Amino acid sequence: MNGPIDFKIDSTDGNARSGILRTRRSIVETPVFMPVGTQAAVKGVRFEWLEDELDARIILGNTYHLFLRPGHELIRRFGGLHKFSTWDRSILTDSGGFQVFSLTDLRKLSEEGVEFRSHLDGSKQFLSPEISMEVQAAIDSEIVMAFDECPPGDAGFEKTRESLDLTIRWADRSKKRFDELQAVQSTSFSLSSEQVKQAEACTLNRKQALFGIIQGAGHFDLRTESLERTVEIGFDGYAIGGLSVGEEKDVMYGVLEHIAPKMPGDAPRYLMGVGTPEDLLEAVSHGIDMFDCVMPTRNGRTGGVFTSQGKINIRNARFAEDEGPLDPECECSVCKRYSRAYLRHLYQAGEMTAATMLSHHNVAYYLNLMKRTRQAIANGKFESFRKATLLNLTENEAVDV
Amino acid sequence: MNGPIDFKIDSTDGNARSGILRTRRSIVETPVFMPVGTQAAVKGVRFEWLEDELDARIILGNTYHLFLRPGHELIRRFGGLHKFSTWDRSILTDSGGFQVFSLTDLRKLSEEGVEFRSHLDGSKQFLSPEISMEVQAAIDSEIVMAFDECPPGDAGFEKTRESLDLTIRWADRSKKRFDELQAVQSTSFSLSSEQVKQAEACTLNRKQALFGIIQGAGHFDLRTESLERTVEIGFDGYAIGGLSVGEEKDVMYGVLEHIAPKMPGDAPRYLMGVGTPEDLLEAVSHGIDMFDCVMPTRNGRTGGVFTSQGKINIRNARFAEDEGPLDPECECSVCKRYSRAYLRHLYQAGEMTAATMLSHHNVAYYLNLMKRTRQAIANGKFESFRKATLLNLTENEAVDV
Repeated sequence: MNGPIDFKIDSTDGNARSGILRTRRSIVETPVFMPVGTQAAVKGVRFEWLEDELDARIILGNTYHLFLRPGHELIRRFGGLHKFSTWDRSILTDSGGFQVFSLTDLRKLSEEGVEFRSHLDGSKQFLSPEISMEVQAAIDSEIVMAFDECPPGDAGFEKTRESLDLTIRWADRSKKRFDELQAVQSTSFSLSSEQVKQAEACTLNRKQALFGIIQGAGHFDLRTESLERTVEIGFDGYAIGGLSVGEEKDVMYGVLEHIAPKMPGDAPRYLMGVGTPEDLLEAVSHGIDMFDCVMPTRNGRTGGVFTSQGKINIRNARFAEDEGPLDPECECSVCKRYSRAYLRHLYQAGEMTAATMLSHHNVAYYLNLMKRTRQAIANGKFESFRKATLLNLTENEAVDV
Repeated sequence: MNGPIDFKIDSTDGNARSGILRTRRSIVETPVFMPVGTQAAVKGVRFEWLEDELDARIILGNTYHLFLRPGHELIRRFGGLHKFSTWDRSILTDSGGFQVFSLTDLRKLSEEGVEFRSHLDGSKQFLSPEISMEVQAAIDSEIVMAFDECPPGDAGFEKTRESLDLTIRWADRSKKRFDELQAVQSTSFSLSSEQVKQAEACTLNRKQALFGIIQGAGHFDLRTESLERTVEIGFDGYAIGGLSVGEEKDVMYGVLEHIAPKMPGDAPRYLMGVGTPEDLLEAVSHGIDMFDCVMPTRNGRTGGVFTSQGKINIRNARFAEDEGPLDPECECSVCKRYSRAYLRHLYQAGEMTAATMLSHHNVAYYLNLMKRTRQAIANGKFESFRKATLLNLTENEAVDV
């Protein structure tokens, strides 16, 4: 491994591709789904399950949340998020930009960055490309995202173009600050002298990778321009931002078809914050390698269950005496042991273990979907696999949701 | 094993004793703490942890809750609570009496039983000694509790005596119905013909044990009378009820000292719903063998942590950067891996895994306390073990709670 990450495509099938992404902490097979660990934990699923049974190799952390709580200075003093949380496989952190725009109000956007009020206590906070890089350096994630602005999915051309220009300038500043941080032997830039010694342990020294983010909403030409200018700056990987933010599904699929195959072929392609099983397969067909989404865990907490036969809701009375597993095709520890009837009872009774076990299964479903996708690509059978999978999903889906 | 359970004392040390309780489903070393699984689950702690790591051999189920949801007829159709929940070690069920008196209002107490409104939906419900036995038969627990009335801890002599008389009459009726149920080869007494076949699988045929409950509040002479009359009816084990229900601690300790050593020596002695680590050691010193209490899991959900150095609350700011484990003397999977700082962060951030992991540790603490208690008794060193343990607990306890 020469750089902070190493990425190799092993197989292609149409535009779909499977490969290996190596970081200093784990070997990640792609296409990969990254469970979301917003606040240094994947909601409801203990690391032990993620490691031993589910074998997740990379999870996502949210810079915005970690910046506010417990705070990146605390995380830095612990030697980074891996040491603080004990998760020792790869972590990708977003930049905080998207969350600032989706979770807070009273924002003040300027060339310098964005001032906002914390959703936790209303305190005034500020994030900029430079601060985001510093926070992500303190977190010590394997993959850092450039700081971007994310316009609404239905933004008009002019607004989108302005936003895109700002995102490009911020990408440039992100890269500059990131490079400075990677070049120093210690992250002591903002530490008091007594904290320096502790921080020496987590010297960056070119260990992190930086991904750029392509914006442009539903405008194909702006997406193309965004891609070109982002590639010009130069990153270790490229992400598509600003999808699944309220636009119509055909807009998202259109953008994917238009832009994904144009993204540099030798770098990982990451579709941020998407989506349903159908969305993942669609994106893979256009050459996307990486995904994250809160759907498996968020659904798990409200009774939503992803299965090979479509999504069901465990609250449904028809499961009250159902002795079968959540998903007959799943081999996770929840499906191997517990019945729908029992899990429904736990959910109805408000037992925490309902949320934790449904989340566990849903993460297993997503990880397994990507595993089977990789196998299909390697065998040159992605399209038939995709068709069969979608058929299974839609045949029954109408029943619940 | 001739009867439904087999109980042997291996060692005694003063009035304290250690032994083995065998049921058809597991071998239980006593003194034992039974984690509470009110609604067919121990709150926040998956069965996998309870089996593989914590090695709990028996848990408690609450008849009142299971009667209301999912309902004992559903549980019966699944072949009992073990099959419904997949917990295949021992289960002790309470009778529902205590919960009716503590969780509901608009009760109407009569000689026949108690009418009450469900705390779930306000529906009118009725429990009697006979119905309680039938519900517990459907649940198919290893140990069934007689249906009792539990007066308030500060009830006067006359009120307590009346209540005691009723409890004795109910104990007698419990025993009669229980014996009938154990004698039949199938639990088909209230099933439609088509359900009978299914029910044949869970024939009772003398597989359950029945424990009587000693009441009498803080009145020693009534406790003695209750014990004598309960023993006269004859049960497989004896429980002390009506403690830890609002009375002063010295009243509880006084009753324990007075009554526990008088309970039949060759049958298990069970102190219901108690209590703190200090309470458990006090009760063991008077010869109690079995305990259950919601404290480990309820505290876990609100940040309370039992440790060898006393109880702490993880919310406390002093743990914000504490790299140490919850309890340096604990070897559970939570203490072996996670820091107080990380667990505090999860708690403050409202992550479910905070509640599940604190509950996990607290159950580990209770089970381990009983394990060390058994070893101390076997080594004839219970009193010095108890003194050292209490000293450790109280030296630091003032800090938090």
